[in-house]
Amino acid sequence: MMKQIESIKEFGGYLNRYTHDSDCCHCEMIFSVYLPPQALKTKVPALYWLSGLTCTDDNARTKAGMQRYAAQHGIALIFPDTSPRGVNVADNSDRYDLGKGAGFYVNSIINPWQKHYQMYDYVTKELPALIELNLPLLPGIKSISGHSMGGHGALICALKNPQSYRSVSAFSPICNPTESDWGKDCFSAYLGDDQTTWQAYDATCLIESGSKVNEILIDQGIADEFYDDGQLLPENLIEACKQNGQKINLRMQEGYDHSYHFIASFIGEHIAYHTEALKI
Amino acid sequence: MMKQIESIKEFGGYLNRYTHDSDCCHCEMIFSVYLPPQALKTKVPALYWLSGLTCTDDNARTKAGMQRYAAQHGIALIFPDTSPRGVNVADNSDRYDLGKGAGFYVNSIINPWQKHYQMYDYVTKELPALIELNLPLLPGIKSISGHSMGGHGALICALKNPQSYRSVSAFSPICNPTESDWGKDCFSAYLGDDQTTWQAYDATCLIESGSKVNEILIDQGIADEFYDDGQLLPENLIEACKQNGQKINLRMQEGYDHSYHFIASFIGEHIAYHTEALKI
Repeated sequence: MMKQIESIKEFGGYLNRYTHDSDCCHCEMIFSVYLPPQALKTKVPALYWLSGLTCTDDNARTKAGMQRYAAQHGIALIFPDTSPRGVNVADNSDRYDLGKGAGFYVNSIINPWQKHYQMYDYVTKELPALIELNLPLLPGIKSISGHSMGGHGALICALKNPQSYRSVSAFSPICNPTESDWGKDCFSAYLGDDQTTWQAYDATCLIESGSKVNEILIDQGIADEFYDDGQLLPENLIEACKQNGQKINLRMQEGYDHSYHFIASFIGEHIAYHTEALKI
Repeated sequence: MMKQIESIKEFGGYLNRYTHDSDCCHCEMIFSVYLPPQALKTKVPALYWLSGLTCTDDNARTKAGMQRYAAQHGIALIFPDTSPRGVNVADNSDRYDLGKGAGFYVNSIINPWQKHYQMYDYVTKELPALIELNLPLLPGIKSISGHSMGGHGALICALKNPQSYRSVSAFSPICNPTESDWGKDCFSAYLGDDQTTWQAYDATCLIESGSKVNEILIDQGIADEFYDDGQLLPENLIEACKQNGQKINLRMQEGYDHSYHFIASFIGEHIAYHTEALKI
């Protein structure tokens, strides 16, 4: 069962935080939900937001400015954590891009990670089932978005479950992790050396192997240092979409960086986009 | 001279951070400015935002969601720090409510504080002169707002300089610091034992002694723990306004707390309010 540990009124709705004992991650997990004012009277659709490296459930709810638009459109926002947590959970304290805060939304099959790092099942199955049972959410009416590592997460969750998500968008996503340093390092740790296993968690590879969604919306800042470093590789995703008939709207935004200030600038358009798809 | 140390594109404008050697605080000061897209072509009015205890220039620019509205209305946002900083600046590391992060927007006259803690002169004189010289701001066309300790700061800056600010508003301000624990502790440290000196930095006392502005707008959450603790005392301010013919719009907001989520919920209305007053 989930337990509410905080509730803050915002834009007429409530930003709540919960803990629960996760079956798939084998530890206590924390997450936040913004319930718009409409949810006081009726069930509402949900937009899941997956955050990037180093984040918890708190970053986006504090910095992205999403609640304003969610209240306007009557959409709940779901903010999962980015990894399992707790003293018993494996970590690599020397690195921000492996272990806690860096779950990469995969199901690990390698020790010491596999016991707790089951973030793909957590985000796509356990968490939706839990909150649809306990909160005023329309069952199964959900979309997904995210930033950077969470943009990767949003893309793979939607591509692997096209029937489960009405729409998908991303900010500055890691589009082809099997070809970038962040992805290679983490996938080898969490998934081992067999790269065919990696491809099941790579948006570009999924499209190359036939996965498809209605449309993909991505905003990418041109002044983003991680884009320059070759961590994000949107060109590879675009090429895979072109080769495989996947509709995609990649908007290269001049002058914008990788920060939440970039997300804040365009999140209103993303939430309007998802609202259209979430109409019942 | 001021030096730009960061620039982040947001909502088509730029969130910049600067340092400069402050004459009145005798140390290097840091501040942030959001220049809306309109400022690329023409000079714009400015809204000063004074933050609360423990904050730097970064909190509001990250959490309040102000930039969206500033871009919409063509208003620059000025985010000063809340105190002097640096290794040579007096501090009380045991307390969050005295010393660094807690300048209270007064000019200290007591050692060891007086050398650096000249935040009133800094915010009302030195900073406006500096940025009006160096940034695309309309000279003298400015308003002021703030939160908690910064709400107190906004009120006293406007009440002591009614010709200098077009409008004033505040969130959860410390309305009567000479009567609340935060205020008594800090005023005795910064200003000494003579309470007549304190009154010159207390919004309620200033109104009682005849200071006047066109109007005061305040939002106060009813679920605010510091309101419950008697730190904010809006009732005292209301009574002084009633006795002295000062127009005030105090909106008691049901269910809201003291956090930036409260500010975010109503900052759009405050910026629209200031925009009206800032029309040239």
